[in-house]
Amino acid sequence: MNTRDTIDTQLNVLENFDPIIPASYQDCEYLMLGNLTPSLQLKVIKSMEVRPRLIVLDTMNFWMEIAMPDLKEVIKEIDVLTINDEEARLLSGEYSLRKAARKILQMGPTTLIIKKGEHGALLFSGDKVFYAPALPLEEVFDPTGAGDTFAGGFIGHLASTGDLSWENMKNAIIMGSAMASFTVEKFGIERLRDLSMEEIADRINEFAELTNFSLEFPAVIK
Amino acid sequence: MNTRDTIDTQLNVLENFDPIIPASYQDCEYLMLGNLTPSLQLKVIKSMEVRPRLIVLDTMNFWMEIAMPDLKEVIKEIDVLTINDEEARLLSGEYSLRKAARKILQMGPTTLIIKKGEHGALLFSGDKVFYAPALPLEEVFDPTGAGDTFAGGFIGHLASTGDLSWENMKNAIIMGSAMASFTVEKFGIERLRDLSMEEIADRINEFAELTNFSLEFPAVIK
Repeated sequence: MNTRDTIDTQLNVLENFDPIIPASYQDCEYLMLGNLTPSLQLKVIKSMEVRPRLIVLDTMNFWMEIAMPDLKEVIKEIDVLTINDEEARLLSGEYSLRKAARKILQMGPTTLIIKKGEHGALLFSGDKVFYAPALPLEEVFDPTGAGDTFAGGFIGHLASTGDLSWENMKNAIIMGSAMASFTVEKFGIERLRDLSMEEIADRINEFAELTNFSLEFPAVIK
Repeated sequence: MNTRDTIDTQLNVLENFDPIIPASYQDCEYLMLGNLTPSLQLKVIKSMEVRPRLIVLDTMNFWMEIAMPDLKEVIKEIDVLTINDEEARLLSGEYSLRKAARKILQMGPTTLIIKKGEHGALLFSGDKVFYAPALPLEEVFDPTGAGDTFAGGFIGHLASTGDLSWENMKNAIIMGSAMASFTVEKFGIERLRDLSMEEIADRINEFAELTNFSLEFPAVIK
């Protein structure tokens, strides 16, 4: 379930999609650009009257293969890029994710999220790194949409708190991971439809429990 | 670097290895059984005059393929089993690591460590789970011996503190991960030879920083 094999890509209606941003969205503070044609993502950014406070962009290997120059153009204009580990290696030409992150952070974004599926997600900014492991689940029913849910939970947390600090970016990654962990439990958006605030709170606590430890170095020397 | 392809296995001198435990080792409290023939691992346990306080066993897919019945015998006698994710799936017949862990914990050990290479390690006991992510490294020079170093750091921490609680097992996993993160930086045991206590302390702090976050659920509701 952790790797994706693309047999064929048909863009269908999205191939000639040419969105017009309604006036009521022109002053949006937080812009999440879903995984679409890079030139279209750039057009959306350029058509905003005021530059949003935060622009997050999702993309994938498909665009790296057929539209790398356009992708590199739009990446210059954004704040946060979310891709998976394979894509980070493809975009940077580096196998080490730490080196890949350094190269990608020189391409424009100030923050990079590398998603590793069932192994969690890494957050990079400057020289800082944060690792949000994925919760080991009993059953992964359908991983479709996990990445989109992750992105939604991430930017949703930032938009609802208004805090773009490194500390809160880490919290946003946890929120994204928690939300995505629900999505994979059922088909489509079924699990998200009937989700309660209590369930989200419990899940976030599970994430905190998952990595919490108390090892202090002085305790090691006897 | 995260998967291993075994082309051929030659046991050589280990094929007829028949160790005799020296009298001075008979009262050892902490027994770490390295990855060897399961029947030999069992013989070592049986030849101890007093049952050690803690028995940790490392094994691999090779033994699951050629000596599964023997392996299942020795697993009954131990406290902690360390294997990788692929092996956990092979041993349990379950893809979900959470389900795999539950099945394996019914085979004898009270604690299970599932190593995931560059993605870190999971610790299971009863219904509890802990995830120690691996530190994203600039360069992995040679992963050979990472698993052995991990096991040594793990049992070494338990032996030096004498505390076998769940909390301290988590700390031991972090210690094992920290030590293994040095091993892969150079060839063989080169990096471990010239390691200082300060470097270990700094590395442990990096692990703490890596997963530390402060997301509280009430902060999410606005």
